[in-house]
Amino acid sequence: MLKGHQSWIFDSKPIIISSGVVGGPFEAQGPLAKDFDFLHEDIMLGQDSFEKAEKKLLEQACETAINKANMKKEDVQFFISGDLMNQIISSSFAARTLGMPYLGVFGACSSAVEGLSLGALLIDSKSAKYVLAGASSHNASAEKQFRYPTEYGGQKPPTAQWTVTGAGVVLIASQGVGPRVTSATIGRVVDMGLSDPFNMGGAMAPAAVDTMEAHFRDLGVDPSYYDLIATGDLGRVGHNIAGDLLTNHGINIPKEKLTDCGLLIYSEKQPVFAGASGCGCSATVTFGHFLNRMKKGELKRILIVGTGALMSPLSYQQKESIPCIAHAVSIEM
Amino acid sequence: MLKGHQSWIFDSKPIIISSGVVGGPFEAQGPLAKDFDFLHEDIMLGQDSFEKAEKKLLEQACETAINKANMKKEDVQFFISGDLMNQIISSSFAARTLGMPYLGVFGACSSAVEGLSLGALLIDSKSAKYVLAGASSHNASAEKQFRYPTEYGGQKPPTAQWTVTGAGVVLIASQGVGPRVTSATIGRVVDMGLSDPFNMGGAMAPAAVDTMEAHFRDLGVDPSYYDLIATGDLGRVGHNIAGDLLTNHGINIPKEKLTDCGLLIYSEKQPVFAGASGCGCSATVTFGHFLNRMKKGELKRILIVGTGALMSPLSYQQKESIPCIAHAVSIEM
Repeated sequence: MLKGHQSWIFDSKPIIISSGVVGGPFEAQGPLAKDFDFLHEDIMLGQDSFEKAEKKLLEQACETAINKANMKKEDVQFFISGDLMNQIISSSFAARTLGMPYLGVFGACSSAVEGLSLGALLIDSKSAKYVLAGASSHNASAEKQFRYPTEYGGQKPPTAQWTVTGAGVVLIASQGVGPRVTSATIGRVVDMGLSDPFNMGGAMAPAAVDTMEAHFRDLGVDPSYYDLIATGDLGRVGHNIAGDLLTNHGINIPKEKLTDCGLLIYSEKQPVFAGASGCGCSATVTFGHFLNRMKKGELKRILIVGTGALMSPLSYQQKESIPCIAHAVSIEM
Repeated sequence: MLKGHQSWIFDSKPIIISSGVVGGPFEAQGPLAKDFDFLHEDIMLGQDSFEKAEKKLLEQACETAINKANMKKEDVQFFISGDLMNQIISSSFAARTLGMPYLGVFGACSSAVEGLSLGALLIDSKSAKYVLAGASSHNASAEKQFRYPTEYGGQKPPTAQWTVTGAGVVLIASQGVGPRVTSATIGRVVDMGLSDPFNMGGAMAPAAVDTMEAHFRDLGVDPSYYDLIATGDLGRVGHNIAGDLLTNHGINIPKEKLTDCGLLIYSEKQPVFAGASGCGCSATVTFGHFLNRMKKGELKRILIVGTGALMSPLSYQQKESIPCIAHAVSIEM
């Protein structure tokens, strides 16, 4: 049900009955390794291209979520997925393997939250009994497409972020046990004129703040309602900017309550510049780490603000700035 | 509401209160020219790149739909759009101009029908009062990205199709006057192993038939329920294959009732090989020509089966076949 101008309240509180979270070797060295269902030692996953490896990550995350719920893929009505690859081939080829009715979405690194929001809406409106929603990214496939092949060993500035090799998927249902999706806020495109593809966090921060502001306004709640508010992949630079902007907009979120998935998945010792990014960042951290913390009783109410930079290499070459978006979804135990 | 395994029935019958349909100089020479709101003589639309011209087409279609409904963009809750460009930049940059909450979708040339289906679902579930949904393509931006820049003058086989330069958008509402969206069927990915990017119609035909079959089964209707059934962009080759496949599957649709948007938009004299394609094909023909025919009373019930080839140049280079999808939506007067 529409609430305010751009938010949905899910009266039936759709349930996340299972999740599948898969990562690569670099994620295995990070502090959240135990929150993954599978961690691959081989960044190729035995495939002959990085793109096929990414598809494999997503397929395995889907299989895991379905298996953990003791279901068959035939029982699931819809698969909603997005990724960073041109024409979202990771999602579409995984959809071919799954054979489920499929809705492709694109919100760059906000795709997992866009998919979760739409999936919860399908359940809440009785348009589906079971929906599988997720997203993936792969460090080497993303670097190759957006910047340079990793084999070139190009240098990066400290504002750059490290694309997560990982896929995160949730199975959402009208019945069952698990954390519940209670609302979603769909973001507007915000573009403050930044055009540096090595500073995505800085570009995306205003979009994250715009959506948080809309969420609190539409739902009539303030940040104290949540135990944790996590942006998707602002990294250190964007996280600090978002903190300042929130203060300027009169939204006070205690430092210990506001975090960013891109700051959690890797350790300080890993050479990830300003933090992590990629569709797989918010997908694996939210559907793995945060849901686990909710199940352990450490968190009761969380707000995930998936952030996305909607540029392409071509729009950058044509001197366009970076249009950014953020979608927010609240999950409660 | 879910009906069968993969269809939605929209009990409230969301209303298409207005549309905006914009094309280029080649579309102006076609038999449906009078169904466009604007036709541009300049394929660049005064922009300095084909991609910016495509964005402009989409922006103008959006503006037109909003203006025709005597509304302001602030009154519209959500913009749902997709296109063929990498990272769907036409949609995302148009969303930046519009400033509306935005859901990016990708179903290749099925994107307009995917957006219309989701838009109708948002209205039907009271998750929005007004939704703008559409898609765009541009012949030169698509050729450049998927095949060769048009300036090269490369030759093509007779199975090739001509990407439409056009954008089609509808404004969907819970109240008002106009054709109504009554149901949607979300398709599965179907891939019969074809890998020739110059024969998309042939590759997509089985997906179109799979979705039509699901639609008739889920809704418990047969083709006689509709005055017209139109696939998106199968072209001549795919249209003939789809006809044969339907017969093989025991689905009998009279020849005069089954058509394809890709066969209607250009004349026999235009050098378009097997017909038209592109996100703008089903978007402009459906939201322009078919809706006009409905308003004139010539058609009462139509089924639009948007078709999409979900490959990328990279998946083709990696020897993958073409995963295809089709989504169907019924519109009734």
